[in-house]
Amino acid sequence: MKKFKNIAVISKKDDKNVADTLKSVVSFLEDRKFSYFLDKNSAKLISTNKNNIEDVLPDNCDIVLIIGGDGTLLSAAQTCADQNIPICGINKGRMGFLADIPPDKVNEDLKHILVDGDFSIDSRFSLSGEIIREGKSISKNLAFNDIVIHSRDAIRMIEMDIKVDNENVYTLNADGMIVSTPTGSTAYALSGGGPIIQPNLEALVLVPISPHILSNRPIVINSGSTVEIKLSEKSHTNGTVSFDGQINIPLNTEDVVRIEKSKVVLRLIQPPNHSYFSILRKKLGWGT
Amino acid sequence: MKKFKNIAVISKKDDKNVADTLKSVVSFLEDRKFSYFLDKNSAKLISTNKNNIEDVLPDNCDIVLIIGGDGTLLSAAQTCADQNIPICGINKGRMGFLADIPPDKVNEDLKHILVDGDFSIDSRFSLSGEIIREGKSISKNLAFNDIVIHSRDAIRMIEMDIKVDNENVYTLNADGMIVSTPTGSTAYALSGGGPIIQPNLEALVLVPISPHILSNRPIVINSGSTVEIKLSEKSHTNGTVSFDGQINIPLNTEDVVRIEKSKVVLRLIQPPNHSYFSILRKKLGWGT
Amino acid sequence: MKKFKNIAVISKKDDKNVADTLKSVVSFLEDRKFSYFLDKNSAKLISTNKNNIEDVLPDNCDIVLIIGGDGTLLSAAQTCADQNIPICGINKGRMGFLADIPPDKVNEDLKHILVDGDFSIDSRFSLSGEIIREGKSISKNLAFNDIVIHSRDAIRMIEMDIKVDNENVYTLNADGMIVSTPTGSTAYALSGGGPIIQPNLEALVLVPISPHILSNRPIVINSGSTVEIKLSEKSHTNGTVSFDGQINIPLNTEDVVRIEKSKVVLRLIQPPNHSYFSILRKKLGWGT
Amino acid sequence: MKKFKNIAVISKKDDKNVADTLKSVVSFLEDRKFSYFLDKNSAKLISTNKNNIEDVLPDNCDIVLIIGGDGTLLSAAQTCADQNIPICGINKGRMGFLADIPPDKVNEDLKHILVDGDFSIDSRFSLSGEIIREGKSISKNLAFNDIVIHSRDAIRMIEMDIKVDNENVYTLNADGMIVSTPTGSTAYALSGGGPIIQPNLEALVLVPISPHILSNRPIVINSGSTVEIKLSEKSHTNGTVSFDGQINIPLNTEDVVRIEKSKVVLRLIQPPNHSYFSILRKKLGWGT
Repeated sequence: MKKFKNIAVISKKDDKNVADTLKSVVSFLEDRKFSYFLDKNSAKLISTNKNNIEDVLPDNCDIVLIIGGDGTLLSAAQTCADQNIPICGINKGRMGFLADIPPDKVNEDLKHILVDGDFSIDSRFSLSGEIIREGKSISKNLAFNDIVIHSRDAIRMIEMDIKVDNENVYTLNADGMIVSTPTGSTAYALSGGGPIIQPNLEALVLVPISPHILSNRPIVINSGSTVEIKLSEKSHTNGTVSFDGQINIPLNTEDVVRIEKSKVVLRLIQPPNHSYFSILRKKLGWGT
Repeated sequence: MKKFKNIAVISKKDDKNVADTLKSVVSFLEDRKFSYFLDKNSAKLISTNKNNIEDVLPDNCDIVLIIGGDGTLLSAAQTCADQNIPICGINKGRMGFLADIPPDKVNEDLKHILVDGDFSIDSRFSLSGEIIREGKSISKNLAFNDIVIHSRDAIRMIEMDIKVDNENVYTLNADGMIVSTPTGSTAYALSGGGPIIQPNLEALVLVPISPHILSNRPIVINSGSTVEIKLSEKSHTNGTVSFDGQINIPLNTEDVVRIEKSKVVLRLIQPPNHSYFSILRKKLGWGT
Repeated sequence: MKKFKNIAVISKKDDKNVADTLKSVVSFLEDRKFSYFLDKNSAKLISTNKNNIEDVLPDNCDIVLIIGGDGTLLSAAQTCADQNIPICGINKGRMGFLADIPPDKVNEDLKHILVDGDFSIDSRFSLSGEIIREGKSISKNLAFNDIVIHSRDAIRMIEMDIKVDNENVYTLNADGMIVSTPTGSTAYALSGGGPIIQPNLEALVLVPISPHILSNRPIVINSGSTVEIKLSEKSHTNGTVSFDGQINIPLNTEDVVRIEKSKVVLRLIQPPNHSYFSILRKKLGWGT
Repeated sequence: MKKFKNIAVISKKDDKNVADTLKSVVSFLEDRKFSYFLDKNSAKLISTNKNNIEDVLPDNCDIVLIIGGDGTLLSAAQTCADQNIPICGINKGRMGFLADIPPDKVNEDLKHILVDGDFSIDSRFSLSGEIIREGKSISKNLAFNDIVIHSRDAIRMIEMDIKVDNENVYTLNADGMIVSTPTGSTAYALSGGGPIIQPNLEALVLVPISPHILSNRPIVINSGSTVEIKLSEKSHTNGTVSFDGQINIPLNTEDVVRIEKSKVVLRLIQPPNHSYFSILRKKLGWGT
């Protein structure tokens, strides 16, 4: 029994480097007579007139195969998670903590997942970030990795007041603040000095970026917490809030970014024998 | 209504510095006609022949007041938590994340807690660490802060194989490894570079001590995990396992320390308006 | 004998907060009948028609008193160091590692320095940073703290090839790279995780900003080295080079920033009993 | 012309793993008819009755070849540097920052060095550490990597008063303090979070081990400085001072360890095309 009948394929934008892997995937799907759709980028890369996915995933889509890096996957995740369609990532990027299948294992792993139904589902929660300006919500967005508040100019400190569950944590003078999910703990939060957090832990981590005092340290809190970050009126520069490094919205001083766990869940389809710690060892150069 | 009727008082060992605070506490208890007991150290400090607590807390004891630092509190916690008696700490130590009442607020805070019944209960889980030698359990101990595996000689690297839930994490060459509760995240784990973890988060953190590679980083995992640390046969030196820095047991190479969440819970009695983040700010010098 | 006869006073721009201190300084100078000049900002703050310093310091100027933070001092230093005029900083800023005299010691310390001739001179070397585009030098600037290469967008990684004395160090994927003097080691480089460097050490430090691998670490090299940082053609975003956080110049991919020790030296006039380590303890919250 | 005529060979103690490399080295020397000596360990490993080096290197010895890791090299360095005999290390250890020739390049690199005279000399300064007890010097030792003051028990904080050039730096509560040369900056100091320091920089670095406050940071100072570390009388435990991790001497409270640059210089013979940054990249896993 095939669990996934209708398959969508999404490829990294403007990257000829993914064409070969895409061809392997398409061959696999055609050989096994799967019903599949290609997005615009994929269709362009292999010059087919197959029906395109544009912004809308087909109604009957059971799984989305992403060929690219974590960036491509996170971008697609915004739509897929909302429509509750699981994602399977084939890594053509630099790191690939989410897009985990290596190109040379496409046939083997897709057989396990699509033909044998031998796979695991890895659920990752998301964050919702709402911008409050003068008491009114002006926008709300989703992030699977992190929500980052940063000075709009590259090299300039901002002052932020940080609250957790309505309690004052501290006033931070730094280049920015990262609020990360466990999923994001191996992304930007790691560069900022944050800890690695097991994906299924119900936790968030607050990681200051280049804090201008010595006595700072990442804080790990309950995922059920509400984090509020207010750009202080003392900030000499305005800020930006960034969702997964993909959606960037300018902030005014006194704006508040309210961050909470969202109900939207990203489901990652993993091949059998997938091991989180083995990925860490491989990607982070441990144990050599 | 007085919630706590029979009160035990335990003081830091051999520290004349606590005598004044102890006297204030005793005056408070006598003035309000509380039934109380003193431990040996306290009795010695104020030269009383009041019934002593030695190793055994009185059966009818409702609360233990600790006068000292976190070390004194953790030492008493081994007994109190086992007998399910809550603890209230008066800080005469260096840091005092657990023993939170400052000496100059003894009267005010004890009135809130003992007279008005105005307090909160802060539950902290503990870790159980079992040493397995040649397949057999040879000892089992409790820790509220951390279980630390360390080389027995001061300055010498050991090699450890780390497993979480029976899955290989990595082989670590370091001076040691800290497995810490959220409670311990502001203690030794912080010195090792670990993150701060909100006390009520169901998490553990693994913090390597002076790891001999660059690419290491603390890992935060579920508190329900089983962590196994095996002293590698390649270790040129034998190791020690330390529970809250108080109980130290020598390890042989090939010994495994198996660490799990214990059912024993430490209940800390906190005065009203107690705030975790405010303690962090004060003790860690934040926000000045 | 008065060593300094003609004194210039420069105040922080648009900061009413410095007015009181400025008034104390001016009173001091008038009482002792010193010949002095005020810059535009100072003149505005105390509504005087005293001759202004604009961009040009008077020819016969012996010393410049700066009232403000390290930013104001660094800005004035560009001109003063070039004209070889020493600077004495009165701290009205946040940190004040360079502007060291606290406002409440203005009278005492100015008496030591200006009347008694009791002071020390602290010489700080500067860096020269040249931008090479397609083989041609397009600009050259000075920095006393640091030269920072950073992505132009707030939250985006850049790729840089780092060379020291024409030898390849590494290819860095990070938010940026800080090349700092010992003077700058307590400024932005500290936020990035760099070490503290004694001011008179002939060294530079390279501190990556949020590097996207774990195995990175600041590198301290000889101050006589030539550091070349090339913005890789793979960088998806263009960069900026910033001198002391004050002068910002956009970079194209393939631009090279060549950094060398400059001959320009900043001379800081320090009151007697000035101690570098005592400043570190005070400003960084050590030893409390 | 052969620059080195009389060659001594020293091998890692009790390590059968070095036998093959030793045999290659000996074959090379015999084939080229070099005059050579073996130390006890080497003689045992290849069962020869060749004249042994015991504690005394032959008078006419021109160069010492070390087969082993940095530990073996540092141990031999104590004698060689004192007698001003250069060292060439063949790496059979874990890291090998000092013992740099890889086993598979023994023939190639020894030909360059011993036959062609094509090599560079890398001079590394050493530290002298004197223990002062009650005003009297009780011992004095040498270190090429680092002098480490540490608690004698594995897991226990000590309090130390740190002075540089007779000026108070701070009082440190930590597991220990590392005073490292640039050579040692890639050894234990790196594990403690210290920066990498270019070998020829005239600098020392002070790296606290697991400091019990957040606001600590390594400090880089002039190599001409005198560092004094006094084990505070408040230390609940006595300490140890360790020289290159090889010589360990117990300390009493109130003992002072006085550390200065020594005149003894270690000369490392490096094969042509030796590059410090390339070694860093290889050993520290950079740039992959």
